[in-house]
Amino acid sequence: MDKIAIIGLGLIGTSMGLAIRQTQNKDIEVVGIDLEPTHVSTARKMGAIDRDVRTIPEAVRDASIVIVAVPVLAMRELFEFLPEFLAPGAIVTDTGSTKKDVVAWAEELLPDGVSFVGGHPLAGKETSGPKDAEAAMLNGSVYAICPARSATPESVQVIVSLVQAIGAKPYFVDPAEHDSYVAAVSHLPFMLSVSLVNATSRSVGWREMAKLAASGFRDISRLASGDPIMHRDIAVTNRDALVYWIDELIKDLHSLRGMVKDDQAGLERALVEAWEARARWMLGREGEEGAFEGLKASDQFMGMLLGDTVAKRFRDVGQEKEDPTIYRRD
Amino acid sequence: MDKIAIIGLGLIGTSMGLAIRQTQNKDIEVVGIDLEPTHVSTARKMGAIDRDVRTIPEAVRDASIVIVAVPVLAMRELFEFLPEFLAPGAIVTDTGSTKKDVVAWAEELLPDGVSFVGGHPLAGKETSGPKDAEAAMLNGSVYAICPARSATPESVQVIVSLVQAIGAKPYFVDPAEHDSYVAAVSHLPFMLSVSLVNATSRSVGWREMAKLAASGFRDISRLASGDPIMHRDIAVTNRDALVYWIDELIKDLHSLRGMVKDDQAGLERALVEAWEARARWMLGREGEEGAFEGLKASDQFMGMLLGDTVAKRFRDVGQEKEDPTIYRRD
Repeated sequence: MDKIAIIGLGLIGTSMGLAIRQTQNKDIEVVGIDLEPTHVSTARKMGAIDRDVRTIPEAVRDASIVIVAVPVLAMRELFEFLPEFLAPGAIVTDTGSTKKDVVAWAEELLPDGVSFVGGHPLAGKETSGPKDAEAAMLNGSVYAICPARSATPESVQVIVSLVQAIGAKPYFVDPAEHDSYVAAVSHLPFMLSVSLVNATSRSVGWREMAKLAASGFRDISRLASGDPIMHRDIAVTNRDALVYWIDELIKDLHSLRGMVKDDQAGLERALVEAWEARARWMLGREGEEGAFEGLKASDQFMGMLLGDTVAKRFRDVGQEKEDPTIYRRD
Repeated sequence: MDKIAIIGLGLIGTSMGLAIRQTQNKDIEVVGIDLEPTHVSTARKMGAIDRDVRTIPEAVRDASIVIVAVPVLAMRELFEFLPEFLAPGAIVTDTGSTKKDVVAWAEELLPDGVSFVGGHPLAGKETSGPKDAEAAMLNGSVYAICPARSATPESVQVIVSLVQAIGAKPYFVDPAEHDSYVAAVSHLPFMLSVSLVNATSRSVGWREMAKLAASGFRDISRLASGDPIMHRDIAVTNRDALVYWIDELIKDLHSLRGMVKDDQAGLERALVEAWEARARWMLGREGEEGAFEGLKASDQFMGMLLGDTVAKRFRDVGQEKEDPTIYRRD
C-alpha cells in the first residue's frame, strides 16, 4: 500500500486528492491535512482523501509521496519542519505557482535521501477552499515539473506518472524560466484584475458604474477573487519578473492611450494585432502542441478554423469588401 | 402588423431579432439587413428575422421601429442616409456601446416626427457576427436607455416595452453619464485585455509562455477577441473618458508595482480590498438591486452568502486563527 499525503486541502490540494482517488488504484491510500479543520472534513466528505489525520507528522510518516499544496511562503516553514518525519526515500512535490524559491528551499532544507520534484498544475479557478475542487480541473492541464538537482531519476518518473494518471500533461521547465513565463501569463493578469477592481471600485461613481458593469467586467475582474494570501506569496516570490511585466504593461497601456487620443489608424492596428494573437493562442490551446507549431507557418489554417470571412475581415481592416448596394435607393 | 427593421445583423442585431421573435407576437414582422451578405442568410436561417430585404430603404420603409445595430462610427452615415425613407412617426433606436455622440447625431440628423430612443444592452460575448447570437444573451441584462430630447413619451414607452419583452431591464441614464461609466467598467477592461495580449505576445519568450498560459490568461485576454472595428469606434467616440480611465489604471498599476517591490503589507491590503470589492459586486449582480443596496450596511449578509470562513479569513488577513496543533510532534 503506497501512502500519499496531501498537506493543504484548498482548491488545488483537494482537486489533486479527487483526481488521484479517481484513478481507483487500490494500492494507494490518500491522507490529508489542513490548518483549517473544516477543509479537512469537506475534503473527506467529497472523497478527496481516504482518511484525515490530526498532525503533519502523522500525515507524512511512511508516506511515499508528500504533496505540499499550501501558499508558497508557507512552504519554507514546512520544509524546515518536515525532515525528521519524512520516510527515507520519500518523494516530496508541491503545487505552488512559483518554482525558483520553492526548489531552492527544498534543496536547502529537505534531507538527503528525500527527492524533491517541484510541480505546478496550470489550472485553477478564482475560488479558494476545497468546496469547488474537482478532478476535472486538472484533466488536460499543462503541469510544470521542476525537479531539484538532487532528485533521483526514479522519483521524477514517479511524479510524471502521477501527473499523467490524473490526466495532466507533464512539462519540464527550468524553475527560473517557469517563473519568468508565468509572471507574464498568470501573475500579471492577476495584478491587472486587482488594479481594475481597485481603480473602479474606489471611484466616486462606483455605485452607478457597478450597475452597468456586465460580462466584460466580470471576466476581467474574476482573478481578483483569488485567494489574497496565495497571490501575495506568489508576488513576493516572483518579485523581479512581476515588476518587469507590470512595467511592460504600463508601457503598452501608455502607448494605447496615445492612440486612443489621436491615432485612430494605430489604434485599429493594435486592436487587430491583439485579435490575431489571441486567435492564434486559442487555436494552439484547442489543438495539440503540433497545431501550435503549424500555426506560425499557416495563415490558411487559421482562416479555415476561424472562418475565412472573419480572418479576412480583420486582416484588411478598413478595406472591407462588403455589399454597398444595400444603400441603393431602389 | 408592426414592422421592426434591424440594420446590422452581427452578434447583437441577430440576438435582438431572435429575442423579439421569441416573444411570438404575431403582430410583429422582423426584417433585417447587413453589409455582409452571409450575415443576412445566417440570421434568416437562425430565425432571427422573418425575411431579408435587399436594401436599407426597403428595410425601413413602413417600419414602426428601426433598430440600428452597427459599429458606432457607421451610425452617423446611416442617420444621414435614413431620413427620406423613414415612415412618419417611426421610432429609431440603436444598440451602440457609446451614447453621447450617437444621441447627438440622431438629434442633428433624424427628421422631425421621428423619435430617437438610444439603447445599449449591457450584454455581449467576445465573438462577433450572427453565428453566436442568442436570445438568452439579452435576457436579464441591464439595458441602458437614452432618449433624444425630441423623443415622444410614447416612443420611449414603446422601447421600454420592447426591452422588457425580451427580458432585459431598462435603465434610464444620461448619455454623458452612461459613457463615463462604461468607459470604466467596459471600455477600460477591453483595453487592458488588448494590452495584456500585445505586451506578452510581442515578447521573445512568447512561444514558451503561451504553453503555460492557462485559464487566467484565457479570461483576461477574452475581450481582446472582440470585433476591432466595433471597439475602435467605441474608443473614438468615448475618447476623453477612456483616456481618463487608462490614466487611473496606470496610476493604480504603478502603486501596485511599488507594493510588489517592497511593501508586502500594502500589497496584502490591496489584494484583500480587491477581493472584497469584487465579492460585493458579484453579490449585487446575483441579487436584485435591493440586495446591492443592502450590502453596504451589512457585512453579515456577505458572510452568509460567501461562507463565513472565507469572509472572516480575508477580512483579518495575517491573523488567521487556524489549528496550529497540526504541527504537533505527537
